[in-house]
Amino acid sequence: MQITSAEIIDLRVPTSDDMLGSDPFHKAPDYSSAVLHLETDGELRGVSVVFTVGAGTDWIGYGIQDLARLVIGSTLAEFTENPHKLYRRLIDHHQLRWLHDGVFRMACGAILNAMWDLWAKSENKPLWKLLVDLEPEFVVGCIDWRNLKDALTPAEALEILRKANKKQREQEMSELGPKAYCTAGWLGLSDEAILETVRKLQKTGFDSFKVKVGQDRKGDVARIKFMREAIGPDEALMVDANQYWGVDEARSHVEHYLPYGLKWVEEPIARDDVLGYMELSETFKDASFDFACGEHAASPVIFKQLLKSRAIGYCQIDAVRVAGVNDVMAIILMAAKYEVPVCPHGGGIALCNMIQHFGMWDQIAVSGHSETQLVEYIDFLQEAVEEPVQMKDGHYVTPRALGWGLEFHEEFLADHTYPKGKMWRDRPKNQSGVHFEWPSGE
Amino acid sequence: MQITSAEIIDLRVPTSDDMLGSDPFHKAPDYSSAVLHLETDGELRGVSVVFTVGAGTDWIGYGIQDLARLVIGSTLAEFTENPHKLYRRLIDHHQLRWLHDGVFRMACGAILNAMWDLWAKSENKPLWKLLVDLEPEFVVGCIDWRNLKDALTPAEALEILRKANKKQREQEMSELGPKAYCTAGWLGLSDEAILETVRKLQKTGFDSFKVKVGQDRKGDVARIKFMREAIGPDEALMVDANQYWGVDEARSHVEHYLPYGLKWVEEPIARDDVLGYMELSETFKDASFDFACGEHAASPVIFKQLLKSRAIGYCQIDAVRVAGVNDVMAIILMAAKYEVPVCPHGGGIALCNMIQHFGMWDQIAVSGHSETQLVEYIDFLQEAVEEPVQMKDGHYVTPRALGWGLEFHEEFLADHTYPKGKMWRDRPKNQSGVHFEWPSGE
Repeated sequence: MQITSAEIIDLRVPTSDDMLGSDPFHKAPDYSSAVLHLETDGELRGVSVVFTVGAGTDWIGYGIQDLARLVIGSTLAEFTENPHKLYRRLIDHHQLRWLHDGVFRMACGAILNAMWDLWAKSENKPLWKLLVDLEPEFVVGCIDWRNLKDALTPAEALEILRKANKKQREQEMSELGPKAYCTAGWLGLSDEAILETVRKLQKTGFDSFKVKVGQDRKGDVARIKFMREAIGPDEALMVDANQYWGVDEARSHVEHYLPYGLKWVEEPIARDDVLGYMELSETFKDASFDFACGEHAASPVIFKQLLKSRAIGYCQIDAVRVAGVNDVMAIILMAAKYEVPVCPHGGGIALCNMIQHFGMWDQIAVSGHSETQLVEYIDFLQEAVEEPVQMKDGHYVTPRALGWGLEFHEEFLADHTYPKGKMWRDRPKNQSGVHFEWPSGE
Repeated sequence: MQITSAEIIDLRVPTSDDMLGSDPFHKAPDYSSAVLHLETDGELRGVSVVFTVGAGTDWIGYGIQDLARLVIGSTLAEFTENPHKLYRRLIDHHQLRWLHDGVFRMACGAILNAMWDLWAKSENKPLWKLLVDLEPEFVVGCIDWRNLKDALTPAEALEILRKANKKQREQEMSELGPKAYCTAGWLGLSDEAILETVRKLQKTGFDSFKVKVGQDRKGDVARIKFMREAIGPDEALMVDANQYWGVDEARSHVEHYLPYGLKWVEEPIARDDVLGYMELSETFKDASFDFACGEHAASPVIFKQLLKSRAIGYCQIDAVRVAGVNDVMAIILMAAKYEVPVCPHGGGIALCNMIQHFGMWDQIAVSGHSETQLVEYIDFLQEAVEEPVQMKDGHYVTPRALGWGLEFHEEFLADHTYPKGKMWRDRPKNQSGVHFEWPSGE
């Protein structure tokens, strides 16, 4: 089976209409994705998404289109024989590598993730099952070890993978997948609106919730107190500051959160401030909470440092920020060595569809347990895909769709394609003729 | 004066024909730039470049084109009143900020740098002179302090700026600018070719040279030994590994360099591996050399950590990797506090034209001395610009061209515009119809 072409769709959903997804920086996000369809000369196609929050989806699409030249004409067999070869062909492109992380690494990830999708579909397996069935040696061979060996050696990774009791764990997770938590408290919503969501989810078995902070300190503490009282002392409560503070500010805010039995404090500071995380984790070493981050960590090297130094207590991988399955494998293995629970970042458009597979792989074949991990779940935009994630008793239902399970409804794609889909073409534009610029009140 | 439009030129020079600029990763770079012309309703225009090594110049150009919407229609007066406002409008764009560093931050930098250029031209000053003449309070107001205050507070920055004896230092640097060093030993060149360049430069007053390493250990050590013997014991010799190694590998290579009295070892490991730099600097604390990096550090937060931890002994700012003058101001001020010499990264197309201004500003108005700094100089591609950098006695001649001094020869621009300029249109293309793909021997 040969890759014949790449189609990139600029998919944008005007979620800012309802302030869903809002946080201190992303005041009016429109959940969006650069959707990649790698077409083949067979009946299957490889699908992946790179999630964004509106403007900029086209930057990533532009990059994917260019990079796709490095995979068009190659065969699935070449990929499955050695996925690391394509990884290096992309990440190490002798000129494009100058572009670094961000758009470039995300575009590399799009192509790799679509190839993994194609492979899983060709084997009639969900992505997690393909990964679980890989031999430990093969997994180790997928990883770019060059900058990671001081934290985890290939031999240590092999040992971790060989220790897992995959058969038993797969049996145990064959109906109920990873335990989930829900981000209910968006910054733009009222306490009452948040509580309504929480109550609805509690009825379905959820017992772990996250709220956004980063406004004024008093308002944040009031919201945390409100949430803690609403859910009682036994359920898990987490907060997320979305990188809003500097190190000293974070310290002075977070110390006011001590009485509320939080499980984690997420992204108190900049995504790349490793030493800042180390300082904060030292300051709050006796607190109920640990620090969590990763959804914006732009490379496995940042994860390496956060894990090796034990600066974070929860490792929040993202499915599309780094270079696809290959990078995420490395990060999950490093987290296992340092015994940091992998709690993937979900939400967006169909990110949950992707991360559930990593949660499954981690809990079956790497960490090999489900005692400490929580996988994020966001309860909207599932209408976009043919096979929505299913929840049961506060867990993901074991995914059975093939590959990532990322086939979008054709009509949803057409309606939300930017700027010509019907959701966009009639919206008011600014003077530059675009829908996006700056939220009101700058 | 109002910004009326943005023209972006994809400028590429086939330097790979001669292997100039080659290193272990960038095996066949074609020195390139996304050139930005911000046109106005007056007689001046703002010019900046984002340097790349070939493919991907168009990715950055695409981004600049999009971001330019945020500056077109604004006036120079709005910018000069508060440059930080435009910085935030770009870097904090509520949706684009999701794209992070790399392409996005570089595109932000292009626009900021072009506005600074326009401002300097409107005042009839070279960029360095504009910066030197700014009041300390104004400089501090240009900087995004949010993630930096744990390393340097605005009050400390003010103190540093107020302490400088600008008048005397400007007088001292009014003819001879910053001391320079030259990167002569490209990986693709023979020892003899390198030595020829070195001899030529020594005659003009240079006494500091850098060579590339990262091949096999024996070859690297042989080259270092060859160079040390060629230049004698008293001249400065530096090596650059361009991020080729992991931490342990770096250690095992670099220990063989101990006998050769090196001044610095540059980029032994990944650009974002702060803890790795800390470990290496501890291991080699008694060596003749310190570690140097920064040309690929993608954000001021990475610099903050490298400086605060004293992991690096030389701070290699780049003029176009971070978000322009505003970010570089922050980095130079942090370097001053931690007494780390600022040794800017040069080369590329016209990077030297830009960094000489930062060297001047640092040595006149921030660190306020010229005792430890070296500014990189690469002796090619100066034919591209109307006002080439001038060297005298191993120093930059004080730049007098207005703004950055970045006006390209129209013919050079036309000839090297990719893919339609005459340097490209007749070159062989690959089957995808592009000139760039993968160097032979992948």
